[in-house]
Amino acid sequence: MRAEVRSDKAGPFLPVIENATGQSPVLLVCEHASNALPAPWGNLGLSPDQTRAHIAWDPGALGLARGLAQRLDATLIHAPVSRLIYDCNRAPDMPGAMPIRSEVHDIPGNAAISAAERLARTQAVYLPWANGLHNLIAARIAQGRRPVIVTIHSFTPIYHGRPRAVEFGIIHDADPTLARSILAASPQTGLNAQLNEPYSAADDVTHTLRLHATPYGLQNAMLEIRNDLIADPQAEAAMADRLAPVLAAALHAAKAAA
Amino acid sequence: MRAEVRSDKAGPFLPVIENATGQSPVLLVCEHASNALPAPWGNLGLSPDQTRAHIAWDPGALGLARGLAQRLDATLIHAPVSRLIYDCNRAPDMPGAMPIRSEVHDIPGNAAISAAERLARTQAVYLPWANGLHNLIAARIAQGRRPVIVTIHSFTPIYHGRPRAVEFGIIHDADPTLARSILAASPQTGLNAQLNEPYSAADDVTHTLRLHATPYGLQNAMLEIRNDLIADPQAEAAMADRLAPVLAAALHAAKAAA
Repeated sequence: MRAEVRSDKAGPFLPVIENATGQSPVLLVCEHASNALPAPWGNLGLSPDQTRAHIAWDPGALGLARGLAQRLDATLIHAPVSRLIYDCNRAPDMPGAMPIRSEVHDIPGNAAISAAERLARTQAVYLPWANGLHNLIAARIAQGRRPVIVTIHSFTPIYHGRPRAVEFGIIHDADPTLARSILAASPQTGLNAQLNEPYSAADDVTHTLRLHATPYGLQNAMLEIRNDLIADPQAEAAMADRLAPVLAAALHAAKAAA
Repeated sequence: MRAEVRSDKAGPFLPVIENATGQSPVLLVCEHASNALPAPWGNLGLSPDQTRAHIAWDPGALGLARGLAQRLDATLIHAPVSRLIYDCNRAPDMPGAMPIRSEVHDIPGNAAISAAERLARTQAVYLPWANGLHNLIAARIAQGRRPVIVTIHSFTPIYHGRPRAVEFGIIHDADPTLARSILAASPQTGLNAQLNEPYSAADDVTHTLRLHATPYGLQNAMLEIRNDLIADPQAEAAMADRLAPVLAAALHAAKAAA
């Protein structure tokens, strides 16, 4: 049972919080910020090309989220471990939490995960992340500053060989209010913006919103940017310039509607 | 700012877990188990009679929950601090979280709580509780043992001067499946059993279910026993004898319906 012994020693991998004193109601959340594959798991049998690819993280998402945090004066929280070890936007029993396969790639290190190893990864990666995010949200609520939860993701322009036309996806879970306000404000970006594309809550991609926003009745949305549009720091900054006013306008509209 | 300095030193008040190796899918949760009023808060200006009354806790709920845990071989988790300091079944911005008044009693120590004190109590009592419960639930899910969340409460037979006829209340939030199964099995108890009495989710009494069960799609219900029926250890044990078979039958029915 080598894997279990190794994993007992791992973590906890705490979330990283930036601009903790940010004054915006927006709380930016980036579950797939990192492609780090720390010990004891290591590269899970993947090549360096694979661990740099979108299967391991959301390329550009952290840079974009930092750009938005700066422009909005928002706090940002992000996860420090690759989603191939544990995808923090998935519950522990979802297949995508520790995926056996991602798009066209088998993940050898995830081929046969025991219950004990699943528990160890949950305790080392998922729970420190989820409870850290909960600490931040509950503290804001206690102080009378109900946060608006906006998760930042990127998606691959070509998936299973098919190009995707959508450039900016806005996804909601139970409460569509903020997502619709963002969509309404999005024409100013010039992007091909779509509601619930390239996937939706039905694909189990809204775990963070369900766990952290819905129970507290917090406004929330998940943003997805096509990763070829945020492929380097200059592009990330340019995208932050385009999206920050959209978020600000949507926040204003959502507040007026509430 | 004396209150803030005092509170910075308080806690964390961790939940108490009993029968951690219990094999039942039921996870018993008791948010109002204790009338302890620890330092730095102390008695909040209340008399000894008041701190023994139902406003400070749910009398009999812990004894009943322990009886059920034993009979079902279920794990039990309970909170170690009075709900007058922080009601762990409330979000930090709900008025009931740190109540100014409870039924006919003013709570002097809660009359003027600053944002910093509200944050301190949230961090000392609510977050250790909620994250501890989350740790337990997520660990079970990771191991392929999805828990069934059953919260155990008691209510006062006379409220604002009016007697209550209901003896056994079964309350649900978004998913009524388990609550309806428990109601269907309840005639064998001989109790006056009612769905969503003496209050319901509309009264904001289902925070624990919303935060911990619904996001994971776990079966859940909140049970309320009139506290004159569990007023001493013998009565608690007798009630556990009556309710354990009801829970077992409801679990079976809910599983068959799923």
